[in-house]
Amino acid sequence: MIVEELPERVREHVRNARRNGMRVGCVPTMGALHQGHCSLMERARRECDFVVSTIFVNPTQFLPGEDFTRYPRTLEADLRCCADSGADLVFTPQTEHMYAENAQTTVQPGKLAEVLEGVIRPGHFAGVTTIVAKLFAVTEPDVAYFGQKDFQQQLIIRQMVRDLKLPVEIVTCPIVREVDGLAMSSRNRYLSAAERDAAVELSRALAEASRLATESSLSSEEISEQMRNILQSSGQLEVQYAVLADPETLEYPLGRTSGGEAVGLIAVRLGTTRLIDNALIRFS
Amino acid sequence: MIVEELPERVREHVRNARRNGMRVGCVPTMGALHQGHCSLMERARRECDFVVSTIFVNPTQFLPGEDFTRYPRTLEADLRCCADSGADLVFTPQTEHMYAENAQTTVQPGKLAEVLEGVIRPGHFAGVTTIVAKLFAVTEPDVAYFGQKDFQQQLIIRQMVRDLKLPVEIVTCPIVREVDGLAMSSRNRYLSAAERDAAVELSRALAEASRLATESSLSSEEISEQMRNILQSSGQLEVQYAVLADPETLEYPLGRTSGGEAVGLIAVRLGTTRLIDNALIRFS
Repeated sequence: MIVEELPERVREHVRNARRNGMRVGCVPTMGALHQGHCSLMERARRECDFVVSTIFVNPTQFLPGEDFTRYPRTLEADLRCCADSGADLVFTPQTEHMYAENAQTTVQPGKLAEVLEGVIRPGHFAGVTTIVAKLFAVTEPDVAYFGQKDFQQQLIIRQMVRDLKLPVEIVTCPIVREVDGLAMSSRNRYLSAAERDAAVELSRALAEASRLATESSLSSEEISEQMRNILQSSGQLEVQYAVLADPETLEYPLGRTSGGEAVGLIAVRLGTTRLIDNALIRFS
Repeated sequence: MIVEELPERVREHVRNARRNGMRVGCVPTMGALHQGHCSLMERARRECDFVVSTIFVNPTQFLPGEDFTRYPRTLEADLRCCADSGADLVFTPQTEHMYAENAQTTVQPGKLAEVLEGVIRPGHFAGVTTIVAKLFAVTEPDVAYFGQKDFQQQLIIRQMVRDLKLPVEIVTCPIVREVDGLAMSSRNRYLSAAERDAAVELSRALAEASRLATESSLSSEEISEQMRNILQSSGQLEVQYAVLADPETLEYPLGRTSGGEAVGLIAVRLGTTRLIDNALIRFS
């Protein structure tokens, strides 16, 4: 496995691979890798001939006051994880490799970024689209892999790729969960033992929403209300949003139609940690 | 010469060329081609193995009230010009090929777009960077050719390429002028005979600025003042700006240093037509 921090070297490696007829897959990450990331790389390994992982804690997607400085940096363990998952090349740029001193061009998402996470974290998604566009420009993948965990993010990246006509296929991979249902996240390591216990309510609320969509005739709004009740029952979670939204447009409230699809989306604060989770839901 | 309106077909053609080891050059245009455009294609022809021209009147770079609807569309003549200049492929997309109904992602330039043209045409350069990013994504060139005529535009595109790490080399080609000095422009055809006579004052003002930079010890501001005097002498030109600026940052007013470089930049209104021109200048 090659580890490279220089964009121009990465481009060379990838172009060599492509010249040899290889299909190139890319897995962009911020490091602090867990099994969710592994599942992305393993999928890339199965579907591609040359797998590039990127590890870069992107400053522009953190808001002032967010956890940029304390975001876990675990490069050594991350590289083992990449090797175990079958990556061929890991791109580990320094900040100055991705943002020159005078950098000023950004990629701005549109209305998909103006709801939910976009309201709570204004500017976050512009940081994401800008860095992902850059990572795609450096790694020139045929296909890139993202986790469903960041549901709104993968929608926005799909939209960016479509809008900017980038020659990349986007694959969204299922959320990987702990045995009790908690969605894996690099931020779970911030949780105290008591917070870790309470965190299970996110997946429990989503499971209940899914059950109600199938077994009751409650409206989307009533189901969202039930999710909020569950989340608040522990007394530890501060609910930022818990809604059923359209899985393509993120519009809500969503009318209930038989066989219709929704995505349940949750964000909470738990102590100083912010957690999100989601699940695709189908109405009976 | 192939003429294609579908992005996916263009990508196929270009990728075939590249698989055959060809160097790909791209010349993005809005059609209404003149000898300035020809010079770009001819340079591309000399330096590349496969030359792609694009012809697309990009709606998002026109402001409300500008000349989008009356912008000259002369496809038949344009295609002859492309063929004569040695283009291998001409990409002539329809608007819906470049902007899907739901398109919302944009590429936003930074502070280089906040002066001069950016003040007079707010949003114009975001339209330019967005469409050029898309055209690069479709045509995947090794090198792309732009005219110095749109001086601020080529700076902003260079900045975009650097910032977004796009694997494209930008080449800026000299302004092509009529015998009396008027910079060639698709918009020159809007001019009445009297306006056409007055239009020569732009290049005359720039020539005088260049002379004063060499032969006088006037400051940048004093030289700019002389440019404005010349432009106003005809009584027909409304001067929007006429300045000497830093040729990299566009900052002005510019201190005069021996051997220092400047760019003289002019924009005027002449009846209902807007004209711009520029020249690189060196102080003695």
